[in-house]
Amino acid sequence: MQTKGRKDYAIGIDIGGTNTVFGMVDHRGDIRYRGAISTRKHDDITEYIEELHEALLPAIEHIGGVQNVRGIGVGAPNGNYYNGTIEYAPNLRWTGIIPLADIMQKKFGLPTALTNDANAAAVGEMMYGVAKGIKDFIMITLGTGVGSGIVANGQLIYGHDGFAGELGHTIIIPGGRFHPGTGAHGSLEAYASATGVVRTAIEFLDKNSAQESLLRAFPKEEIDSRIVFECAMKGDEIANEVYRYTGEILGMSLANFVMFSSPEAIILFGGLTKAGDLLLKPTKASMEKNLLPIFQNKVRLVFSELKEADAAILGASALVWELKKD
Amino acid sequence: MQTKGRKDYAIGIDIGGTNTVFGMVDHRGDIRYRGAISTRKHDDITEYIEELHEALLPAIEHIGGVQNVRGIGVGAPNGNYYNGTIEYAPNLRWTGIIPLADIMQKKFGLPTALTNDANAAAVGEMMYGVAKGIKDFIMITLGTGVGSGIVANGQLIYGHDGFAGELGHTIIIPGGRFHPGTGAHGSLEAYASATGVVRTAIEFLDKNSAQESLLRAFPKEEIDSRIVFECAMKGDEIANEVYRYTGEILGMSLANFVMFSSPEAIILFGGLTKAGDLLLKPTKASMEKNLLPIFQNKVRLVFSELKEADAAILGASALVWELKKD
Repeated sequence: MQTKGRKDYAIGIDIGGTNTVFGMVDHRGDIRYRGAISTRKHDDITEYIEELHEALLPAIEHIGGVQNVRGIGVGAPNGNYYNGTIEYAPNLRWTGIIPLADIMQKKFGLPTALTNDANAAAVGEMMYGVAKGIKDFIMITLGTGVGSGIVANGQLIYGHDGFAGELGHTIIIPGGRFHPGTGAHGSLEAYASATGVVRTAIEFLDKNSAQESLLRAFPKEEIDSRIVFECAMKGDEIANEVYRYTGEILGMSLANFVMFSSPEAIILFGGLTKAGDLLLKPTKASMEKNLLPIFQNKVRLVFSELKEADAAILGASALVWELKKD
Repeated sequence: MQTKGRKDYAIGIDIGGTNTVFGMVDHRGDIRYRGAISTRKHDDITEYIEELHEALLPAIEHIGGVQNVRGIGVGAPNGNYYNGTIEYAPNLRWTGIIPLADIMQKKFGLPTALTNDANAAAVGEMMYGVAKGIKDFIMITLGTGVGSGIVANGQLIYGHDGFAGELGHTIIIPGGRFHPGTGAHGSLEAYASATGVVRTAIEFLDKNSAQESLLRAFPKEEIDSRIVFECAMKGDEIANEVYRYTGEILGMSLANFVMFSSPEAIILFGGLTKAGDLLLKPTKASMEKNLLPIFQNKVRLVFSELKEADAAILGASALVWELKKD
C-alpha cells in the first residue's frame, strides 16, 4: 500500500480529558512538529478522528510525506494495549469500548499502537528520560489523579488484560478517605493527587480552626494545589503540614511498590511534583522508613526531567518503534 | 570435564529453616528419588554441603550417574537469583552473604541456580502446577510467614537486585500490628501467616472475654493455627471470626497486588490453605470488594494442587531447565 520511505518518524498522540496534543517525533526523540486539538468538541468519534487527521496533515507534510512515517502511537486514559481500545474512560465523551487503534489505522493507513497515558509516559522516560538504560522502574504520575506505569526486566507490565499499573487505586488507609470517582475508601489517589492535597488542606484548616493560616485568605472552594504550594513556600505551617502528610502516605505506598517489583528507580511526574523538595523529602523519608532493610537506601526517587506535554508525546511515539516492521 | 550424557534430570533442593529436602526430577516433573537432611546440624556451610553431597550420591546413582544430570536448582530463604547467594537469612545458621551456588557448583561439578523459596514455588506452579500456561500470576505462600513469587509476561519478576516479591512485608494496616522480626507495623505477614492467625485468635479471645469458645480449652501459649482451624470446623464462633478477619485483610492486600500487575490468577500455597473455604471465601469477597470494577470477577483465586514438599523441589529443579546448556 505504502510507497517506500525512510520511515524515520513516528507520530505521538496524547489524548487528555480536555486536549489532545500530538507531535512528529524523530528517532532521537526530537519533536519536529507540534499541534493540539480539543478532545471535547466531538461526541462522535469519527468526527474527532477526522479533525485529528486534518490537524496532522501539516505535520506529515513537514517531514516529507507519509512514506517517512513508521506509525502512530497513542496514549489515552483507560487505553488497552492488547486490544488497541479505550475502555470505559470516565473523563472522555465517548462511552463504552472505542476501537481507537483500528479506526486510526484505517483512517491514516499507518500501523497504530495504543496504551494508557501513564504507560506511555513510562516508555517515554525509558527511551528519552531519566529512566534511560534502567530495566526496572516505576513511573508515578501525580496530577488530578494518580497514574502509574511499571517496567520490569525492561518491559512494561501490562498484565493478562492490559490493565496492570493502577497503583493510584491501591488501598493505603483501609476505611480512609472516600473517593467519589471509584467508591473506594483510602486509595492512594484520594491523598496523593492534586485533588487529595486540596482535601487534606481543607481538612487541616477545619481541624485546626484556631490556627492562623495564609490559606484562610481564600474561600475554601477556590483553594487549589497551586495555592497550597504557594502558601507552603511562604512558610505557612498548615500548608507545609499538608505536604508532610501527603509525602508520608505517598512514601508508604512507594515502599509497598518497591517490595513488589524492587525497582532501581521510582520516577515521579505530573503537576504535584512542582512542589519539589516540599513533597520529595517527606516522601523519601516515609518510603525508607517503611522498607525492609534489604531494600533501604537502594531506590532512586527522582522527578521526571521531561517537559509534561513532551513526555506524553514522546512516550506515545516510542510505542511505534516497538511495532513490527511492515 | 563431564562425560556426555542425556542430561534429562535436574536436582531440586529446598532449603528450609529446619530441613533440607531434595529430589531427582525428570523432564516431565516426576520426582524419581527423594531425600532430606537437617539444615540446622552444621554451623559450617562446608560441612553442610559435604553432608548434602553424600545424601545426593544415591539419587545420582539411581538415574545412571552424574552425566545424566543437567544441573542443580536451589530454593532458599533470602535467596538471590542474580548472585546465587543467600543473603542475611534470619532463619538459617549461616550469617551474612553465602555464595551457595558457587560452592555447590564446585562441589558437584554441575551448573547451579538459586532463587528464593517462594520464587521457586512459583516456577514449580508454572511448569507443573495450576499455573501451567499462565503468563501472569502471583504465588502467595501462607506459612509461618508470608512469601511471594510474581510472574509477569511469563517471567519471574526479580527486580534490579533480585529481591522483588516481598509481598508479606507490604503495609496493609498503617500503624497496625507490630512484627517482631522486622519492626514494621501492620504488614500483611503480621495477619495472614500462621503466626498472625494465632495472634488474631488470642486478641479476639481477650477482647470478647465473656464469650464462650472452644479455644478457651487450651492454654493461650499452646494455641496454634491447627487448633484454630479445628475449632472453626466445629462451629466455634470466635475461631470462625478469626478466618473471616484474616481473609478480609488478605483479600484487601490481594486487591492491591492485582491493581499492580493484573494477574490472571493468584495461587495460594502453604499451611494456612488447609483451612480451605474458611479462608478462601472471605478472602475472595474482600478482594473483589476492593478492586476497581475493570478488575472485578476476572482473577482466579486458587489453591496450589502440588504437595507441599514436592512443589518446593519441583520449583527448584525447574530453574535448571532455564540454565544455559553447556
